[in-house]
Amino acid sequence: MASRRLTHSKVLASGLSAARWATRQPVARRSISSFVAGEPEKPSMKTSLPGPVSQQKIASLTEVFDTRNVSLLTDYSKSIGNYIVDADGNVLLDAFAQIASIPLGYANPALMKAASTPEMVSAIVSRPALGNFPPVDWAEVLSTGLLRAAPKGLDKVFTAMTGSDANETAYKAAFMWRRQQERGGYDVDFTAEEMASCMNNELPGAANGLSILSFKGGFHGRLFGSLSTTRSKPIHKLDIPAFDWPQAPFPSLRYPLDQYTTENAAAEQASLAAVEDLILNYHNKPAAVVVEPVQSEGGDNHASPAFFRGLRELTAKHNVLFIVDEVQTGVGATGRFWAHDHWDLPTPPDMVTFSKKAQAAGFYYTNPELRPNKAYRQFNTWMGDPVRALLFRAIYDEIEKHDLVKHTANVGEYLYSAIESRLATQFPEQFTNLRGKGMGTFIAFDHPDRDNFVKKVKGLGVNVGGSGESTVRLRPMLIFEKGHADILLEALSKAASS
Amino acid sequence: MASRRLTHSKVLASGLSAARWATRQPVARRSISSFVAGEPEKPSMKTSLPGPVSQQKIASLTEVFDTRNVSLLTDYSKSIGNYIVDADGNVLLDAFAQIASIPLGYANPALMKAASTPEMVSAIVSRPALGNFPPVDWAEVLSTGLLRAAPKGLDKVFTAMTGSDANETAYKAAFMWRRQQERGGYDVDFTAEEMASCMNNELPGAANGLSILSFKGGFHGRLFGSLSTTRSKPIHKLDIPAFDWPQAPFPSLRYPLDQYTTENAAAEQASLAAVEDLILNYHNKPAAVVVEPVQSEGGDNHASPAFFRGLRELTAKHNVLFIVDEVQTGVGATGRFWAHDHWDLPTPPDMVTFSKKAQAAGFYYTNPELRPNKAYRQFNTWMGDPVRALLFRAIYDEIEKHDLVKHTANVGEYLYSAIESRLATQFPEQFTNLRGKGMGTFIAFDHPDRDNFVKKVKGLGVNVGGSGESTVRLRPMLIFEKGHADILLEALSKAASS
Repeated sequence: MASRRLTHSKVLASGLSAARWATRQPVARRSISSFVAGEPEKPSMKTSLPGPVSQQKIASLTEVFDTRNVSLLTDYSKSIGNYIVDADGNVLLDAFAQIASIPLGYANPALMKAASTPEMVSAIVSRPALGNFPPVDWAEVLSTGLLRAAPKGLDKVFTAMTGSDANETAYKAAFMWRRQQERGGYDVDFTAEEMASCMNNELPGAANGLSILSFKGGFHGRLFGSLSTTRSKPIHKLDIPAFDWPQAPFPSLRYPLDQYTTENAAAEQASLAAVEDLILNYHNKPAAVVVEPVQSEGGDNHASPAFFRGLRELTAKHNVLFIVDEVQTGVGATGRFWAHDHWDLPTPPDMVTFSKKAQAAGFYYTNPELRPNKAYRQFNTWMGDPVRALLFRAIYDEIEKHDLVKHTANVGEYLYSAIESRLATQFPEQFTNLRGKGMGTFIAFDHPDRDNFVKKVKGLGVNVGGSGESTVRLRPMLIFEKGHADILLEALSKAASS
Repeated sequence: MASRRLTHSKVLASGLSAARWATRQPVARRSISSFVAGEPEKPSMKTSLPGPVSQQKIASLTEVFDTRNVSLLTDYSKSIGNYIVDADGNVLLDAFAQIASIPLGYANPALMKAASTPEMVSAIVSRPALGNFPPVDWAEVLSTGLLRAAPKGLDKVFTAMTGSDANETAYKAAFMWRRQQERGGYDVDFTAEEMASCMNNELPGAANGLSILSFKGGFHGRLFGSLSTTRSKPIHKLDIPAFDWPQAPFPSLRYPLDQYTTENAAAEQASLAAVEDLILNYHNKPAAVVVEPVQSEGGDNHASPAFFRGLRELTAKHNVLFIVDEVQTGVGATGRFWAHDHWDLPTPPDMVTFSKKAQAAGFYYTNPELRPNKAYRQFNTWMGDPVRALLFRAIYDEIEKHDLVKHTANVGEYLYSAIESRLATQFPEQFTNLRGKGMGTFIAFDHPDRDNFVKKVKGLGVNVGGSGESTVRLRPMLIFEKGHADILLEALSKAASS
């Protein structure tokens, strides 16, 4: 309890009224499980960032590795639960979680156990080329792991290695599916002209007349195909050749959503109309539309379930595939296992891609025609990684056992409402466009001096992220509790006051 | 000794003369180390392939996973050293090694040890976003691992996840490098027009006027950028949009090389002339040339060191980067650690990409301007995987400790010469265009009925691979010994006689 009292008094010192704090919900017990049994009580900053040891080590790393993006040189042997420790011994509460990719905390005991089994050791050392030589228990690893988590209505999985890879593999499935339709059906064979021309990267064998439709502000990865659908910011795209694929405006909503329902609905209608127009008229015909449930790298841009239902209807109407990119939103952080569970879709997406907190990567699907009509069309050496499939199984077990999705919904509600009622009220110019209500801990706000603000918060011992031009995004792990939220709130408040 | 005697007598029975066998070099002791201490003495086939258990399990796996490429449903808990065991208990000598990606055998004891350390468990569970939060010892992990293996003249590494990813990351570095030169220098900033146009996938911000030049028959991966440089076969490329990038003919050599020196030199000159013409005249200017030391998926097409030196000279002359794709050739199999070590280059390649047997992936480079001029230009969430970097370190230690590159050179010489002097002599129509002399165990030949032949060899308990249209490729691990070569030779001979 020492740390919460300290936290509380610090927050009081920083300017929040005692009355406000008194109205907050009772804090849950310190730990929901053994995850965080050994974690620090609170952040502890020994140096400014980066400290002298970090500076020295980063300088040495720079000789062989690009370090200009380094945020924290991290001592993973000391990082535990929600806390990350740097080379100088600074201990930070981590509400960014390796760009939203750590599900259950550092050194999670259940995952450490899974990572130490003979099965895991074997998967590391005797790594299969999954397409040619799958492990004898691969069906079981999938059915007790990745497939247990399959989105409603989807029952098959194609594994990959990263989010970009997952998206590109889904795009390839979409192109092959569409071309088979144009060819006259799933079983129709290629022509000699197609076989010859594809070797020259030319029509009709290369599907250069087709495209993937994405949204302005969207992020789907940074390999050549995925980057062609990424529309986040110039630094991601400059100087890389890109396909001539269409982009639709993503509805630019005003927050809080419930105060701007009419104009937001109009923005969404305009976006849907643009999508339909591009589907019908863009010179390179979209085989699929890809969308994130929340545009994450692009600045945490939300849209309503009605918008996404509209997209599902439009794509179905025009025989275009609907790919939902859940690389960042998936695996519980929005208070549902998949963010698109919030939408109440009439029929499931055609493909749902995943990575990050799943640690494994790939896409879910159900239509058998999204498996290409011949072997070796969708193939590569590793085709995923059993190490990560085994880890995902352990992650899923823990999420289920501890009901961590519901937990995250609750903590998110607490956190959102505290930012809304306290911080945004006290510092209305520093916490603008608060968003993520009802979306678990997937919460963001804009700040007029974002980079400095994030730096200040970090200096206070809490690691948060930025995205878009001026957004602060919170991406804690699924084991983030109300006590951690209090520490985060305190740091936000203090940074805003300083 | 029992198995070798058996092998010998079986080969005799299959038709090879005792005299031929008598001239073979004395066989080395059974095991060069503890790697293979527990491995079977010989293959042991209990069923035809696939056996009943495999058939049943594959049927069940098919419901959720594409199994049409499955070669062997593998029991990795029983696979050891050079031997792979399937679901029916069939034990095969593995001379394909997960598409050339297993370096030191299944269940290698030194790697099992590395895979069980607390450091490895931490790397699995507390997986970093390497660009933002590298581990405190990342410089050391690199300097004692990946960088110890760096090709001569290269001293930096950019890590990635797979071979395709490694190549695309290298391509991105090439495009950014070239565009900075066009822009006036490494430090020149982007224009507003570039920043705006790249968001629409358009010139001048998107480098759509640039390209990567690759070779007919080349294979560089199957994501959208890498696939645009892959020119192996239609099934790899059909129905996927591709960039308008140029391809040069790869010299089509006649074997054995020493009998056709004049015409082979002419073919190589013609290829170099085509490369120069494309560099000068292709409408999308090449920023880089990418080439495999041996075109592997494309059918094990070789070229001479002189050809590659010519490429190095040409690219340097025209200020085009020279990327050597060592994804399949790297890490010892050709009897040198990197296949391009065979070339005696005047200056090193600009980038060397790696994956497969390295288990880690990425590219080596030395020119600091191949690090883009700003942060976050070459970036993604994971940017590689410490799990694989740690494993690579253990792989490299073992290779060095047991001198496995030299060992592979020796075993390769033995194997090549046995195929040449015995099999190609006895079955001249079944072992044609034998190639890979002096290239370690990176040996291949053509067979008029390749698919059936490979199936027969597999049925005899030896797993070999195919590539190109009619090529049998041998891709044993670095722990493959002369005794294993004898077993392979016996199976090849038997399959040829049957």
